[in-house]
Amino acid sequence: MPQDKDFAAPYRITDGRRFRLRDIDPGDTGGLKSKDKARESLAAGVEQLAALQEKLYAQDRWAVLLVFQAMDAAGKDGAVEHVMSGVNPQGVQVFSFKSPSPEELDHDFLWRTARCLPERGRIGIFNRSYYEEVLVVRVHPEYLKGQHLPEELVTKRIWEQRCEDIAAHERYLSRNGVKIVKFFLHVSKAEQKRRFLSRLDEPEKNWKFSAGDVRERGHWDEYQAAYEDAIRRTATKDAPWYVIPADNKWFTRLAVARAVVDTLEGLDLHFPRVGEEQRRGFAEARALLEAEGGGKAAKKKR
Amino acid sequence: MPQDKDFAAPYRITDGRRFRLRDIDPGDTGGLKSKDKARESLAAGVEQLAALQEKLYAQDRWAVLLVFQAMDAAGKDGAVEHVMSGVNPQGVQVFSFKSPSPEELDHDFLWRTARCLPERGRIGIFNRSYYEEVLVVRVHPEYLKGQHLPEELVTKRIWEQRCEDIAAHERYLSRNGVKIVKFFLHVSKAEQKRRFLSRLDEPEKNWKFSAGDVRERGHWDEYQAAYEDAIRRTATKDAPWYVIPADNKWFTRLAVARAVVDTLEGLDLHFPRVGEEQRRGFAEARALLEAEGGGKAAKKKR
Repeated sequence: MPQDKDFAAPYRITDGRRFRLRDIDPGDTGGLKSKDKARESLAAGVEQLAALQEKLYAQDRWAVLLVFQAMDAAGKDGAVEHVMSGVNPQGVQVFSFKSPSPEELDHDFLWRTARCLPERGRIGIFNRSYYEEVLVVRVHPEYLKGQHLPEELVTKRIWEQRCEDIAAHERYLSRNGVKIVKFFLHVSKAEQKRRFLSRLDEPEKNWKFSAGDVRERGHWDEYQAAYEDAIRRTATKDAPWYVIPADNKWFTRLAVARAVVDTLEGLDLHFPRVGEEQRRGFAEARALLEAEGGGKAAKKKR
Repeated sequence: MPQDKDFAAPYRITDGRRFRLRDIDPGDTGGLKSKDKARESLAAGVEQLAALQEKLYAQDRWAVLLVFQAMDAAGKDGAVEHVMSGVNPQGVQVFSFKSPSPEELDHDFLWRTARCLPERGRIGIFNRSYYEEVLVVRVHPEYLKGQHLPEELVTKRIWEQRCEDIAAHERYLSRNGVKIVKFFLHVSKAEQKRRFLSRLDEPEKNWKFSAGDVRERGHWDEYQAAYEDAIRRTATKDAPWYVIPADNKWFTRLAVARAVVDTLEGLDLHFPRVGEEQRRGFAEARALLEAEGGGKAAKKKR
């Protein structure tokens, strides 16, 4: 019988140097055979998550940044929805990054995401992120033109340099109390095809379909290579990648929830401790409240 | 007779490892004996700067970031005013960074400056900057408490790590087309005293006086050590420091202007070249305009 700890840890990459994408099977379900057990375990995870988030918020020291990356139809939106729905929305900030605006293109490539980094005590979620700079832009290097970079800076080393810059940015953030976890939802090409077809076949899914997504599918192998290289260069102890099997949505969601719980549990979160001085303040406040008179009567009325 | 090239280059540090602050004399004037020659040379520099900035803006590839750091009364504001006054304000963005707000303290320390980084084609000026994190915060480590960092991250290595993070941030920016130049206006303790006294003595300077500045003066040696260490760790070819003698304002301004001109001249700026296709477009546009008729008459009326 698989345990909760089996649902996320096996997919965590803390040292990318020897990582190979083909070592992780998109159809893996962590030993689980049925959706029912998964559903139970997900519900338990979401409950734990809500409790941990309350402490994160009260303690107000750490921020958590969850980065979601994937091929189209791998289930990013659904994972965010199902994992985070139980959490107080006041403590969560979700940002989706689509094609950059002209103002964003006129700045360094981290500018638009750096502005959206979470405050202490919050969970920030990036639905796509600065990693697009070494994924879609790498697969379509013509997009670089839109960035108006000085020509001499666009060399063969640019993807390696961007990964190095991203890793340094993440190291810096982790030193500043931002706990970073990155998810690659790893779907197979066959499963993506099934999901695209169901977007075409089922009217209530039509709105999700985009012909552009099918065109991007033509670059499948290049994307996989770009993901593998990015993960190799940026998976560290401080900012691990989770490469989550994504052919079964019920398992993806469970694994993501477990990974977030594992991350928060690693932070030793606790409600701020009340010191001697504060305790004296509490006693004074209590005395003042009680001296107001009529307290009991007022309480009864409610 | 000293040449223009003698006014900035000797004070540029592109490899900080062996830098010693005491090697630069705050009273140095680059061989110049009189203000008159300096004034002439400053005027010429400002004129060159205005012409270069126009190309920077038209070419729209590079951004330039000028960082100004100094002890109080070293002349930062005056240098910015006198050097940049001839430049089209549309191409310049100046930001002053004072004590951080609660919202800023709740983010990573680069957050508030990263939002203000210049767009391509612009000159951004930081009057104080992220370097304050390894200067005033280092001299007053109690300020770290306001940042609510997780306790385990506040170690003895924090200043070294912050300098490393700053250097990585600047390397990243330079790879993204932001040319960075950092100025430390190096004033002597005796000259600072004279300037503080004149702020007390001269009514039209009273508004500049702050008792807090005099208190900070009590930490003079700690600040000098913090500046030296920061410069040693962050002066690179891509993001050099200029340590400019600042006991004579007329020389400081000249040297800063010269350094900015040198920097822009190093970028090989030029107006965007008009290609064949554009030239054909020009011909069509001219034909359309001329076909409107009445052009000459309308022109005459003006």
